[in-house]
Amino acid sequence: MRLRSLKENGTMIKINEHYTEIGNNYLFAEVAKRVKEYKEKHLEKKVISLGIGDITQPIVPAVIEAIVKATREMGKAETLRGYAPYEGYDFLVNAILKHDFTDRGIAVEAGEIFVSDGAKSDTGNIGDILGEGNQVAITDPAYPVYVDTSLMAGRKIELLPCTPANQFVPSFPEKTADVIYLCYPNNPTGTVLTKDQLKPWVDYAVEHQSLILYDAAYEAFVSQENVPHSIYEIEGAHGVAIEFRSFSKTAGFTGLRAGYTVVPKDLTAKTSKGETLSLNAMWRRRQSTKFNGTSYVIQRGAEAVYSPEGLKQTRETIAYYMQNAKIIKEGLESLGLKCYGGVNAPYIWCRTLNSMTSWEFFDFLLNNAQVVGTPGSGFGASGEGFFRFTAFGNREDTLVAVERIKAVLLSNID
Amino acid sequence: MRLRSLKENGTMIKINEHYTEIGNNYLFAEVAKRVKEYKEKHLEKKVISLGIGDITQPIVPAVIEAIVKATREMGKAETLRGYAPYEGYDFLVNAILKHDFTDRGIAVEAGEIFVSDGAKSDTGNIGDILGEGNQVAITDPAYPVYVDTSLMAGRKIELLPCTPANQFVPSFPEKTADVIYLCYPNNPTGTVLTKDQLKPWVDYAVEHQSLILYDAAYEAFVSQENVPHSIYEIEGAHGVAIEFRSFSKTAGFTGLRAGYTVVPKDLTAKTSKGETLSLNAMWRRRQSTKFNGTSYVIQRGAEAVYSPEGLKQTRETIAYYMQNAKIIKEGLESLGLKCYGGVNAPYIWCRTLNSMTSWEFFDFLLNNAQVVGTPGSGFGASGEGFFRFTAFGNREDTLVAVERIKAVLLSNID
Repeated sequence: MRLRSLKENGTMIKINEHYTEIGNNYLFAEVAKRVKEYKEKHLEKKVISLGIGDITQPIVPAVIEAIVKATREMGKAETLRGYAPYEGYDFLVNAILKHDFTDRGIAVEAGEIFVSDGAKSDTGNIGDILGEGNQVAITDPAYPVYVDTSLMAGRKIELLPCTPANQFVPSFPEKTADVIYLCYPNNPTGTVLTKDQLKPWVDYAVEHQSLILYDAAYEAFVSQENVPHSIYEIEGAHGVAIEFRSFSKTAGFTGLRAGYTVVPKDLTAKTSKGETLSLNAMWRRRQSTKFNGTSYVIQRGAEAVYSPEGLKQTRETIAYYMQNAKIIKEGLESLGLKCYGGVNAPYIWCRTLNSMTSWEFFDFLLNNAQVVGTPGSGFGASGEGFFRFTAFGNREDTLVAVERIKAVLLSNID
Repeated sequence: MRLRSLKENGTMIKINEHYTEIGNNYLFAEVAKRVKEYKEKHLEKKVISLGIGDITQPIVPAVIEAIVKATREMGKAETLRGYAPYEGYDFLVNAILKHDFTDRGIAVEAGEIFVSDGAKSDTGNIGDILGEGNQVAITDPAYPVYVDTSLMAGRKIELLPCTPANQFVPSFPEKTADVIYLCYPNNPTGTVLTKDQLKPWVDYAVEHQSLILYDAAYEAFVSQENVPHSIYEIEGAHGVAIEFRSFSKTAGFTGLRAGYTVVPKDLTAKTSKGETLSLNAMWRRRQSTKFNGTSYVIQRGAEAVYSPEGLKQTRETIAYYMQNAKIIKEGLESLGLKCYGGVNAPYIWCRTLNSMTSWEFFDFLLNNAQVVGTPGSGFGASGEGFFRFTAFGNREDTLVAVERIKAVLLSNID
């Protein structure tokens, strides 16, 4: 027998009422629900998902062996590790520094790197160090976490449309932005900003003393020379930008969990009393107070991503996914569908057929081709009329999916 | 060459100024600093730490084998797992439900359990769903995270002294509390509330419609019959309490990272407009927006804690630590030092020698016995004049440390 509460009216604590301002249906939950319903009604059909951005290729051997080795160490008192440093072990921080920054000629210091359990946690939690009253600018469409976490904190948002009309290069906000979310290579559009296109944003932030929250989770997919891997390739960015990185897409860590965030020591802000605070120190304090470090064994796995074998193996996996991207992109374009992305990112962003809405196209593809994608409108109003395919499927499924899409589209083009 | 920012004055973003209200020296950082300085000056001395509550005994074989097996699964496409469910895999949630609740006759449902990367994250992040203006009550001394995260959110705190004067049973706050942090078995004092002593707190919360944040991270160390393992053993608690659990101390997961939080579906609160919100739904939304699940391989390790071998092995480790507790407690008491805790918790809380302050006693023990403990005052004002020893050392070090303490104390007792 459950001993229920004696009271009927709930607690009188003040709750965060901003939670009522967020939509209830999380995009991927709605996709999952519709797919589940379809499958239950059509048990004989094989549904292929090119929807959620989750990986399908196994974790590479170098990483597996490193995690197994580290796990065995935890079984012996002499090599056991307890609480990890809040900001990550030196072995991983140094590997990150060398390969992601120093070797590319990008100046970042050890004390500026914070290893975490993933970029989603960090892009969500970064708001903890921000105060009230910040005006936020977010590109539209966007990864829903930026909008949802800003709403949860009661921040005012201006969306910056990114569409073919502006070649997916956002215009500056009408209202001066204190905080600007940029994600490049972009999820969901797969588009990028070249160094020349990113520079004006850094200049804007310098001029308006704004903070750029730069999500570079898909950096490993950059293939073109003039596309930056890090915002710190741009002059002035150290004073205005925090960068988020992930091992999820680089090395398939969606189920293992590791990422990192760069908070430069140059980043400062003033309190209302004129006191200068270091955002690096604030984030360090946030992490040391509300986080207890990333699992040691997973950090060893992340370190192995940068070993010679790890680099070779993960590059092969990325090449595999990018071949999928090419197959999807070329398949859709052969039908005359306009596609974006897929060159420096594992996402292909395409126009829906015959001006369908994104969800109409979702249902159309699910019902007629048994292929699942992600409705563009789920990423924001500017995504309406678009559809996202991911290159994270396996080759066989991707080939079959593209053939199925081609077949149903050919017979349905107006 | 680092491309520094062009501006001099920092960003104009509004930062969370409550960060300026938190003390800069995190307790364990200060302990580590003093120990480091001592070691550098006395290279020949062997310093033994009975300070930070970190484990020393290896992770048990059942858990190691489970993590290795799960890691191997991640290396094969057929068994690869991507993003985990935000609230944890069913296999782990069901094991938790059965062993920690159902088998003990405690009513908790699957949808009320949220697996995370540790209790510290959850006790810190739970504040996200709370609004402004809540009056918070926290026992004193306490784990610093409760005070620090409450300060970070700008909440008003009333401390509830727990000392020998009240037998470590806190009195109700003077100002009605909206949110009450309780940690039992207690860190740092090692004391407990019996079921009869906890019941009035649940009744208080029911009467005043308060929310109890109950940290039961040390539940596995409970050895006495009348001491609750979970607050949900108390009638009415489902309507007023959130409970935090950890695998860190139960099974040595400090470096592996896993814990869980119970948010009962009975828990509701009203918005200022009178709308009733479910705290369970709010926490689910928080976790799905700012967290991407706990590492699959670590969840398999946590599941193995509940296997027959895992239960047997982890119980042996806990018995080992509790034997250390007995050695420390009996050693100190043999000198006439008054000690608390150490029976249902791995912490021994003792009076300092000759009315020294906690930090004086810290320096005294470090300099004369080369033994490190944790100054009680670091846990709050009511901890002044007390000192925390942990039972998490290995046996040999614990025995040597106690002998050294006995030797220096015998020659220094007033």
